[in-house]
Amino acid sequence: MARNTTVQADLHAPPITRTLAEFVAQHPSRGWSDAVDHEAHRTFLNWLGCAVGAAHHESTQAALAAVQMLQPAPQATVLGRKERVDMASAALVNGIASHTFDFDDTHLKTIIHPAGPVASALLPLAEVTGASGRQLIDALVLGIDVSCRVGNVIYPDHYDRGWHITGSTGMLGAAAGCARLLGLNADQTAMALGIAASQPVGLREQFGTMSKPLHPGAAARTGLMAALMAQKGFTASPRALEAPRGLLQVFSPKLAWHEATDDLGKRFEISFNTYKPFACGIVVHPGIDACVQLREQGIRPEDVERIELKVHSLVLELCGKKEPADGLAAKFSIYHACAVGLIYGRAAEGEFSDEVVTSEAVVALRRKVVAEVDERINEESADVTAVLRDGRRIHLFIEHAIGSTQKPMSDQALEAKFHGQADPVLGAAHATELLACAWSVAQAPDVRRLVGCAVASAQA
Amino acid sequence: MARNTTVQADLHAPPITRTLAEFVAQHPSRGWSDAVDHEAHRTFLNWLGCAVGAAHHESTQAALAAVQMLQPAPQATVLGRKERVDMASAALVNGIASHTFDFDDTHLKTIIHPAGPVASALLPLAEVTGASGRQLIDALVLGIDVSCRVGNVIYPDHYDRGWHITGSTGMLGAAAGCARLLGLNADQTAMALGIAASQPVGLREQFGTMSKPLHPGAAARTGLMAALMAQKGFTASPRALEAPRGLLQVFSPKLAWHEATDDLGKRFEISFNTYKPFACGIVVHPGIDACVQLREQGIRPEDVERIELKVHSLVLELCGKKEPADGLAAKFSIYHACAVGLIYGRAAEGEFSDEVVTSEAVVALRRKVVAEVDERINEESADVTAVLRDGRRIHLFIEHAIGSTQKPMSDQALEAKFHGQADPVLGAAHATELLACAWSVAQAPDVRRLVGCAVASAQA
Repeated sequence: MARNTTVQADLHAPPITRTLAEFVAQHPSRGWSDAVDHEAHRTFLNWLGCAVGAAHHESTQAALAAVQMLQPAPQATVLGRKERVDMASAALVNGIASHTFDFDDTHLKTIIHPAGPVASALLPLAEVTGASGRQLIDALVLGIDVSCRVGNVIYPDHYDRGWHITGSTGMLGAAAGCARLLGLNADQTAMALGIAASQPVGLREQFGTMSKPLHPGAAARTGLMAALMAQKGFTASPRALEAPRGLLQVFSPKLAWHEATDDLGKRFEISFNTYKPFACGIVVHPGIDACVQLREQGIRPEDVERIELKVHSLVLELCGKKEPADGLAAKFSIYHACAVGLIYGRAAEGEFSDEVVTSEAVVALRRKVVAEVDERINEESADVTAVLRDGRRIHLFIEHAIGSTQKPMSDQALEAKFHGQADPVLGAAHATELLACAWSVAQAPDVRRLVGCAVASAQA
Repeated sequence: MARNTTVQADLHAPPITRTLAEFVAQHPSRGWSDAVDHEAHRTFLNWLGCAVGAAHHESTQAALAAVQMLQPAPQATVLGRKERVDMASAALVNGIASHTFDFDDTHLKTIIHPAGPVASALLPLAEVTGASGRQLIDALVLGIDVSCRVGNVIYPDHYDRGWHITGSTGMLGAAAGCARLLGLNADQTAMALGIAASQPVGLREQFGTMSKPLHPGAAARTGLMAALMAQKGFTASPRALEAPRGLLQVFSPKLAWHEATDDLGKRFEISFNTYKPFACGIVVHPGIDACVQLREQGIRPEDVERIELKVHSLVLELCGKKEPADGLAAKFSIYHACAVGLIYGRAAEGEFSDEVVTSEAVVALRRKVVAEVDERINEESADVTAVLRDGRRIHLFIEHAIGSTQKPMSDQALEAKFHGQADPVLGAAHATELLACAWSVAQAPDVRRLVGCAVASAQA
């Protein structure tokens, strides 16, 4: 029997489910600045490269193998592969792939990786419905706005409780985006949000396992199905987000309701999206950035006597592995990350392969990296000095690493990152064509040509 | 970036994910008493009747319409209908149908409705894999044991926080059951539990909408997919349930870990399962029971001057609607429930139809029902006096209503309930055959004949 106790219920929460639903259903197409629209394209192509790049990873393989037990209809493209599956399964598998290398986008205010759940749901739906590229980008902006705004309401307390916020808000963004793409009205969109609200995904305990990338994948699938169910008349509470026993009060001790609606339709959360230049945790990025810059100044590994780092305490707490044995361990090694930055001028997924991690040159250089905590250095910065064999000392202070909000990756750098991921899977020619399709997607009558380029080539 | 705060983390939780996985993978087939095995059959056939009975409800229709957008392969039976869909979609749709009328089973210690998530996942999987009926019943007992034991760990605090515990533990029971049916080993079963742990379903805010029955349906689907993913090598934390950022610490302030494993393999939670004789909230059942007994004593509506009830306060708080306007409202009316009990001798879904609710005879009799709170009466009891026109007063005290643990429905009563639900959908002949198949399922080499009887007949 139902009990009536609710812990510290807020009975006067504003109707954010309704407000967000009206916004998603009614905001005009491209109702934002050129800068926001450009950021949406950057978000989309960064997500696309990540999903293609991990198309053959064992996590993607295992998820796809499970999905194939359902004998899915060949409705939609699995990015970077030859198989086709139903659109909901494509959302799941592409979402898993896009987060597998931890190389996707980050909304730094909430550490949500927003594209995974939203774009992974939208692209297969657009493929099936024949939606235009403009509709896809509109839905991406609005879907990401919903999940990140909900994230702003509850972050950081919700995350501190142990939820992986990317998945636990992502099903709302995916539902909102898909509702928009399907042309649902505000009532139906509220139902889609409500149906999704009952199905959050993601525990931080899963970090380090395949279930971490499962979170955006499952959130994408859930959001897509929620929108389809709402379209068919399935119902949910119209106050599913804010009611005393609704998602957010169940989820989080912090409830900054105003974050859901402040400047709604004026400020777009996708503006605050960032992209990782390096395929590892953000705390080591300033150190890598410095080492890449040293290489650009002409410093070669054989010139180096020692690399001295002064860093924030979190760097050694999270990434202090001195002698990582394999690629996975190397993701948690500032020593390895700095060594590959200086040797290769990058630290993409390839630089965290077992082969690179155990190569003689890398092992030798990372033993020359010395890191110490300096209380004056904040999380976003690093102080790096290269002590050379000829006695020179070259000093660099990185205030904000490349990829931060303050120092965003250039379009050119995003393209280079894209090629680094997509070329090995699609071949360079297809990858180049896919990139062109992504930049111009908003002008495309549908997404067919784009997804056609994202299929694994015979020669790859 | 990851934060390190966890609210009141229990760092010394026992390894319940592992213990439950070993139990599910290794417990012998039919490793329990005849009474437990019989209860499993009762649970199964009660679930089957509920799923068939709501096969054409608008919630089932809407969910099926959404699923059909995926062009699913015709792998598995949608109970009570002609359509076939992939096994995961069948789990979803059958799970929704089984809980739509709130007429399914209840594990009273946790108010979990355990069969919905577990049986809805198992039957389509058994249909596809060709599993035997014995394997199905084994998996049902073990799956229900997992979800109810997890429920015991966290109830009632988890429910009080706002989670619909049927869905938020159900994906674990479904994953465990499906892992057993697939013959996964303990390592794989732990992964299945872990994958499912990231995907809880269910908010109490959804009560009164179609998203309430969505919860067991989505939990069934999630658990089935988790087991398939684990079989294909997908990974999760092996401590996904108990770790400081695992499901249960994230979920609930109460963590009675011992409940997960006390008498594991000796005491089976399915023993405590109960079945509703009446299609409405449990608090009004004692009153209905009394009125059905009055009818059995020969009292006819036209004999009645007044029905006087003394009840627990919760009855009027939850079910105090005097003049319900339609079927949905009538579910919350002790007055309506008692009237139909006396007139029809039952209170199944049909007695909560709009037609019955507005019929003259029912309206007239319910106006003769007078209810008052009596502090001496507990939640499970009711004191009922029929005051007749001829001056007689007939008094009944119901200590425990029919359907409670203390006064379980007989097999015969369960069969009558089954026919009440299945006959209108399947026709009486098919329903009779289906019932026979359900009682003898453990002897069947596979479930083909059973699901064949559960398809909507041409004449129905």
